[in-house]
Amino acid sequence: MNTDMNIHEYIAHYAKEVEDELKRLFPQEWDIPGILRESAQYSLDAGGKRLRPILVLAAAEAFGGRMEAAMPVACAIEMIHTYSLIHDDLPAMDNDDYRRGKLTNHKVFGEAMAILAGDALLTQAFYTASQARSLGVPAEQVLAILSEMAEYSGARGMVGGQVADMQAEQGATDLNGLEYIHLHKTSDLIIFSLRAGGRVAGADEKQLEALTRYGRSIGLAFQIQDDILDVTGTLEKLGKPAGSDEKQQKVTYPFFIGLDESMQRVRELTDEAVSAVSSGTVSNPQRLLELADYLMKRDR
Amino acid sequence: MNTDMNIHEYIAHYAKEVEDELKRLFPQEWDIPGILRESAQYSLDAGGKRLRPILVLAAAEAFGGRMEAAMPVACAIEMIHTYSLIHDDLPAMDNDDYRRGKLTNHKVFGEAMAILAGDALLTQAFYTASQARSLGVPAEQVLAILSEMAEYSGARGMVGGQVADMQAEQGATDLNGLEYIHLHKTSDLIIFSLRAGGRVAGADEKQLEALTRYGRSIGLAFQIQDDILDVTGTLEKLGKPAGSDEKQQKVTYPFFIGLDESMQRVRELTDEAVSAVSSGTVSNPQRLLELADYLMKRDR
Repeated sequence: MNTDMNIHEYIAHYAKEVEDELKRLFPQEWDIPGILRESAQYSLDAGGKRLRPILVLAAAEAFGGRMEAAMPVACAIEMIHTYSLIHDDLPAMDNDDYRRGKLTNHKVFGEAMAILAGDALLTQAFYTASQARSLGVPAEQVLAILSEMAEYSGARGMVGGQVADMQAEQGATDLNGLEYIHLHKTSDLIIFSLRAGGRVAGADEKQLEALTRYGRSIGLAFQIQDDILDVTGTLEKLGKPAGSDEKQQKVTYPFFIGLDESMQRVRELTDEAVSAVSSGTVSNPQRLLELADYLMKRDR
Repeated sequence: MNTDMNIHEYIAHYAKEVEDELKRLFPQEWDIPGILRESAQYSLDAGGKRLRPILVLAAAEAFGGRMEAAMPVACAIEMIHTYSLIHDDLPAMDNDDYRRGKLTNHKVFGEAMAILAGDALLTQAFYTASQARSLGVPAEQVLAILSEMAEYSGARGMVGGQVADMQAEQGATDLNGLEYIHLHKTSDLIIFSLRAGGRVAGADEKQLEALTRYGRSIGLAFQIQDDILDVTGTLEKLGKPAGSDEKQQKVTYPFFIGLDESMQRVRELTDEAVSAVSSGTVSNPQRLLELADYLMKRDR
């Protein structure tokens, strides 16, 4: 473990490593239409916190696993996250022109290409994750990772959350409905990332369960923090106007329980996350603890 | 092997088995939005020849494998085929209102839901295929199947073919370009289906190579036959007006080399397919031979 880095340096360091890997996903020698490569790469390069891949790596490290062996899965989950943003931004969905201050995929490459680039990223993610096998992860573990990736990102996971989010309206959805959306739209990929990192390092069922509890808590905290920042943040930091959720009539935590109680909930969930990995089940939880703290305090 | 069925009965029998399995993909006890289940199921139920799953099963049988163990992969490939049709029909893509005489997914459920139902089917396909493990297929083989499924259906495979097809125009694309489109848009899923069936049955590399050659030939023949039927077929049999490719300025084999030579090419490719599995590499090629013949003679 690189104990000489503080958590900000740690995140920056591994975000950069993941980004370098992501540039190599569609090798030049592959005979694929240039525009498809360009469109997929455009969105992969569009920045972001790279939170999910960092959680994969940190979870692997927490059980003494090799970061290198976890890298294919780290890239795969970022590809899935990226495809979901491309599809989410489409005119038929959220109809967003900008994301992180850059034009959205369909504004640059057109709708048809954006749909197909998303499909290609989603599909390729399973290929990329499967490459963990050639880095020494046992076939049974890689297979379990692929199977869970499909579960947590599919109908029972992220896509289910997207559908629920699409159907939700202020006045028609309650706090339970909102929690379903957040759990699946956001927490599920986070839970998957942690479990997959744990599996790369050979974590057992009890250890995976601790990661799941940690992930559910920081995932929900992360999303509530997003809702809070939408109210309190600035355009410069968010890359989108503050208050845009309210304007779009999106259901949010502050809408239901107010800003103060939302902030309180973030602190409680962070405590729960900390407690889930502090009982001794996780061999070396230091980075996971720092990440929970970092996420609670972020302002963008 | 059920030698008492002729090839038409064989196809009907296993199409029915696959359809029964497909109904159980999103179990009622799964807590997913009802509309997502309905939308995905609508397109899975929309009929079609179920050619790809039948090729999985026939390839497994050709090497003495258990049909039951091949069933998850058979369903998975039909899910991938189905998602590709849903996305292909979208207004931003081919903008089709009908498929096989039924309203397309987005005409019934709206565009956003159609995009998400496609995403859910694509994702779930990897989960479904992974279930072959619990039916006794070794983890290494299942992993190889998932990895190849991603390759053959992603950027280097079907999605790449879709992109090339979207960009192709009469006058701007040549016969080589058309072959690229057909190879990836159609043949790749067919090649995958055969290889995956072979893997379920424990086929070795040389045997998988024979299946690949067979698949490349019948895949191309299948697509040329489709082009021919678009010129010569009837609305009643095709579920769409004959001549619709010509009207949409689609590049087709008859457009490049005429009807007679296209028909000749189908016969040649069928001969190549037959020869690929007749040299003794494939233990029991009977159904594969019958399927090649059936596909050449089909009129819808």
